[in-house]
Amino acid sequence: MMEYNVLPLARLVEQFERLPGIGKRTAQRLAYFVLQMSDGDAREFAAAIIEAHEKIKYCKVCKNLTDQDLCHVCRNSARDKSIICVVEDPRDVLALEKTGEFSGSFHVLHGVISPLNGVGPDQIYIKELLGRISAEPIKEVIMATNPTVEGEATAMYISKLLKPLGVKVTRLAYGIPVGGDLEYADEVTLSRALLGRNEI
Amino acid sequence: MMEYNVLPLARLVEQFERLPGIGKRTAQRLAYFVLQMSDGDAREFAAAIIEAHEKIKYCKVCKNLTDQDLCHVCRNSARDKSIICVVEDPRDVLALEKTGEFSGSFHVLHGVISPLNGVGPDQIYIKELLGRISAEPIKEVIMATNPTVEGEATAMYISKLLKPLGVKVTRLAYGIPVGGDLEYADEVTLSRALLGRNEI
Repeated sequence: MMEYNVLPLARLVEQFERLPGIGKRTAQRLAYFVLQMSDGDAREFAAAIIEAHEKIKYCKVCKNLTDQDLCHVCRNSARDKSIICVVEDPRDVLALEKTGEFSGSFHVLHGVISPLNGVGPDQIYIKELLGRISAEPIKEVIMATNPTVEGEATAMYISKLLKPLGVKVTRLAYGIPVGGDLEYADEVTLSRALLGRNEI
Repeated sequence: MMEYNVLPLARLVEQFERLPGIGKRTAQRLAYFVLQMSDGDAREFAAAIIEAHEKIKYCKVCKNLTDQDLCHVCRNSARDKSIICVVEDPRDVLALEKTGEFSGSFHVLHGVISPLNGVGPDQIYIKELLGRISAEPIKEVIMATNPTVEGEATAMYISKLLKPLGVKVTRLAYGIPVGGDLEYADEVTLSRALLGRNEI
């Protein structure tokens, strides 16, 4: 860090280096770019970080990101609340919403069960999903976790909890490329996967 | 943007998208990462942007970045002020400092002459370089602009201005890969280029 000889610059580079996928060179490039910004732009950037961090929280019902009590899906009375699509991450909600094929609601787990990483069923929002299912009449739960080993295992784990409750549990069809990441699937593939879903 | 349905998140993604080399996906990834930060970390990140932007300015003498009146090289009495190494960008100063081969001072042009991009000699810090040379006894000016067409042209332009003043003008040896970017040269190559410099 001392190579910069200018402490505020070193600090800014260090901040960028903490971001995922940002190496030393890129961090340097970004920091220099910020220095060239107008005062207004720099302040706007900083404010966006603070604002997003302060205002965004989890939806009380589905744990999706929102700046209100309920997310835009849970607030929307046109959405079918008796179908719940379970995803790992808020970005997966975005990806599924883009297909335009889904009119139900979501449930965001914020992770997958991963014993190797010390993530058990209690560290993700499974309890809250069960709570929704016992509180409301749910026709179907679509497991839309990633098609990875951990995503599959999490889907199986949850479906075993739900079956005794008499809920229909389905899984996205394997239109999604195995071993991939839901977030990067193209919209057509995701649409196919939604339409071709099968009961587990 | 509306796809996010959460304005503070959309704004943050947009801010990251403005950064050079950051596409939509990466901006999204970075924004979500910021949301997962602790409050303290997010505030620190925002503060680093503001602080760097407010405190960092150009050295009065050499136009390198600094948070004081003079940069760390110009402040250092051990550095040979009669040798000036002329570079395009503050990052080039970092790269040359890393070689440990150079004990002179720098002059940062903050750009190159580039008629196609509307950058003439007056838009970069050439006048200030001439000012230094007429004010102090300068033994040598090393042209360390990038080995690109524009970098070469700028080096030639400046050397033609300096020759009548009786200053020795040298150019980095072509140890640096032609068509490349000084910033990315490895330290050994940069050392060779410094040691093998030739009079223009």
